Amino acid sequence: MTNAITDLRERLAGLTDLGHVAQLLDWDQQTMMPPGGGPARAEAKATIGRIRHELFIADETGRLLQEAGDQCNGASPDSDEVSLVRVVRRRWEKARRVPAELAAEMARAGALGHEAWVLARANRDYESFAPYLERNIQLTRQYIECLPEFDEAYDALLDDYEPGMRAAEVRRIFTELRDELVPLIAAIAATKQVDDSCVHGSFPVAGQRALVAAVLERMSFDRERWRLDEAAHPFATSFGCDDVRLTTRWDETYFPAALYGAMHECGHGLYEAGIARSLQRTPLGHAESLGLHESQSRMWENMVGRSRAFATVLAPLVGEHLGVSATPDTLFRAVNSVAPSFIRVEADEATYGLHIVIRFELEQELIEGRLSVADLPEAWNSRYRDYLGLEVTDPALGVLQDVHWSGGAIGYFPTYALGNLIAGQLWERVHRDIPELDSQIEAGELMGLREWLREHVHRHGAKFAMPELLQRVVGGPIAVGPFIAYLKDKLGDVYDTTL
Amino acid sequence: MTNAITDLRERLAGLTDLGHVAQLLDWDQQTMMPPGGGPARAEAKATIGRIRHELFIADETGRLLQEAGDQCNGASPDSDEVSLVRVVRRRWEKARRVPAELAAEMARAGALGHEAWVLARANRDYESFAPYLERNIQLTRQYIECLPEFDEAYDALLDDYEPGMRAAEVRRIFTELRDELVPLIAAIAATKQVDDSCVHGSFPVAGQRALVAAVLERMSFDRERWRLDEAAHPFATSFGCDDVRLTTRWDETYFPAALYGAMHECGHGLYEAGIARSLQRTPLGHAESLGLHESQSRMWENMVGRSRAFATVLAPLVGEHLGVSATPDTLFRAVNSVAPSFIRVEADEATYGLHIVIRFELEQELIEGRLSVADLPEAWNSRYRDYLGLEVTDPALGVLQDVHWSGGAIGYFPTYALGNLIAGQLWERVHRDIPELDSQIEAGELMGLREWLREHVHRHGAKFAMPELLQRVVGGPIAVGPFIAYLKDKLGDVYDTTL
Repeated sequence: MTNAITDLRERLAGLTDLGHVAQLLDWDQQTMMPPGGGPARAEAKATIGRIRHELFIADETGRLLQEAGDQCNGASPDSDEVSLVRVVRRRWEKARRVPAELAAEMARAGALGHEAWVLARANRDYESFAPYLERNIQLTRQYIECLPEFDEAYDALLDDYEPGMRAAEVRRIFTELRDELVPLIAAIAATKQVDDSCVHGSFPVAGQRALVAAVLERMSFDRERWRLDEAAHPFATSFGCDDVRLTTRWDETYFPAALYGAMHECGHGLYEAGIARSLQRTPLGHAESLGLHESQSRMWENMVGRSRAFATVLAPLVGEHLGVSATPDTLFRAVNSVAPSFIRVEADEATYGLHIVIRFELEQELIEGRLSVADLPEAWNSRYRDYLGLEVTDPALGVLQDVHWSGGAIGYFPTYALGNLIAGQLWERVHRDIPELDSQIEAGELMGLREWLREHVHRHGAKFAMPELLQRVVGGPIAVGPFIAYLKDKLGDVYDTTL
Repeated sequence: MTNAITDLRERLAGLTDLGHVAQLLDWDQQTMMPPGGGPARAEAKATIGRIRHELFIADETGRLLQEAGDQCNGASPDSDEVSLVRVVRRRWEKARRVPAELAAEMARAGALGHEAWVLARANRDYESFAPYLERNIQLTRQYIECLPEFDEAYDALLDDYEPGMRAAEVRRIFTELRDELVPLIAAIAATKQVDDSCVHGSFPVAGQRALVAAVLERMSFDRERWRLDEAAHPFATSFGCDDVRLTTRWDETYFPAALYGAMHECGHGLYEAGIARSLQRTPLGHAESLGLHESQSRMWENMVGRSRAFATVLAPLVGEHLGVSATPDTLFRAVNSVAPSFIRVEADEATYGLHIVIRFELEQELIEGRLSVADLPEAWNSRYRDYLGLEVTDPALGVLQDVHWSGGAIGYFPTYALGNLIAGQLWERVHRDIPELDSQIEAGELMGLREWLREHVHRHGAKFAMPELLQRVVGGPIAVGPFIAYLKDKLGDVYDTTL
């Protein structure tokens, strides 16, 4: 098109590169960096954070957005150019009210907090982590103060992870979700429990590696463009669609941790790898809504990975690589057993949502000053007692389990539960479009699903906010019903009952 | 001290962070990145290259240098502040004459060239690499044109790697060196050859890893602050003194490749790790002279690692981890056998210098347009015929063996041979200061040497140019004599002759 758009793209391309640099600094810190590198890494993150922020909020960015917007006049709202201007202008208007020094300080504190958290978690020592969390919360409050237009403090944060979403709506959705989950969990607790002994035992890492490689290969993991490493808290990241980095962690006594962790992160990776080439090196070249992102990871992890259909594929692989002899039926039930547990990322699909509700409530209280950092462990433990009936005695299995707050990511957790709900809606829809999906999965053919997701979700990148995309794909807003229907159907099968 | 110095330090700290970022982008590319990530990595490197360059050459940097210089008036020339202003002003005056767009383009072309080289080397296909090399040479010529004050084109490049050194002086030194090496090599060829069969065989990587770990541990490799990975072309880098990254490569038929590669890179790492804390996060916090840097790596690799004394330490380790039963005497001779060979990094100490002379000559001809990229392989092969009596038939063992030109590093090679000479001078000096050094090494105690190097070389970082540092430590300029004396003495011992 015209010059202003070219200039805007050029400027945003450099900013996208800086985003990749920031992600590499983080990936390296979580997978490769020796511990001694922490302080220098914090400074490097702060410097990149400040430069990115300064370049982004500069008047020049605004001028190019204005001119490019004018030149786009008349083009389709779905075109790359119009979408680029729309999405970037929204972010620019928010970001420019945050001083660069604060952005840098948040990056620095997040990096230092991460190192402190790794140590504190290993030593089961919340006290040593508390000052770093305190600092992150202080900075988060300063950040919120820059953004007075939001109705409530938490909205300013949530909007970074789930643009357009508000805390009040999340509360409404979570109330509905909790009201469905609590009786469901109770009903399951009252039935005969499943035998999950086949997933517990002794599983050498080498065998697990081979199992994970075999499964990821079916998901189209490509060694020329992807890699898999180990991390204390597994995550996925990408530096464009041709350099995708997954992580998992190995538990030698429970193989589903690494297997489903890897499938989960591969779901994230497929999203990033599936974004249209025309959007690469632009801010639209990475997915934006974390709820949508999580819908992909949870779908591959649970709706595919823990399905009765995929158990047919998995059972022989588990036999071959881990020496576990289990029928597909036994395996299917074992990996879907429902029981309250301490660790969110290893929770079953029914109790998972309650882990999120707890974090969402605690985050709001921390931010609003209704809960102090000193009192957080007690509040955490009491909530786990009330919601899940568990007595937390080890902070590594409690308040120190998650990486997010250490890095300053507050307002992020709700997107996990939203992701489950969105996955439920997409899962319902894809089955209508591909009636034979289950038999494809049973035959180990996963590319039909991947292509459908690529066509309907992945390729758009950050073009559309989550509500807009959902409207296009499922014809309505985010809803609890489909996920609950999926869950009742599946868990009824697992427990031989009607839920 | 005063505000201008604080402000200068602050600005340079951010630039040092960007330097670490650039090194991380490179480290990751060479050790971890899947091949598909190449194009995006090239853009990221270009963006960081441009931003670093723009921030460095800005008038503001000059203003702060001026003010800080004024405020330093009267302070010792060896003080951190005066050294900082002196070294940075020199670099600033050179850098500001290079446009940021050229700096970015050189970074981009270097990253693309690197990926092309990896592929070309694997496929033994020089043709596919030639356009990238051509581009690097074009850009290098543009770079030289920005710097007309140098007497000859090559000087502008050499000065980046060995500040203050000139091509004319290198030619003089290399002529002297070659005149010593050629008869030495001939004399050895005329004696009874040594039996080096114990270093050839079948050595699984796991055993080599254990051997290398045991040796590096004696060199004070610290897992909290260092790591070791694999790279096609081994190198060392550091992001400050607490995050040192070494690489090596494993050859399952010849264990000295990985062992001495790792000792070599560890020598580089010890230099970076030994720089004073007061210089961290300043441009003085990384060594500058590559000749000095190479003197450290070559000293640890050859003067320590291939010494008769260290063979006493090595022989039992090689027995334990690789099942090789060799006496220290046999091992000492085997790892020091002299014979013309194709690969520079695996060359013996006597022929090594000729590999460098060849590259130095070819580089000058390429830059001055006396040799075309198309004719380079033929020129390379004919030089290997003349100087080393070898017929190159595989470009992977010939013109494609080294990483440097692919990344645009032209003018770098001479520092390798200069490093050997400097190592000879330091080695002579440290033996005068620590007469019992050989018996320390024989007992596996390497910390006496490390502390001497730290005190006399490492801690100064980039404070002093190489000639200045040499003057302080050995009381004279770079010289060929001590290295040749060391070589004759050692090889005479290896070959039971007088050289």
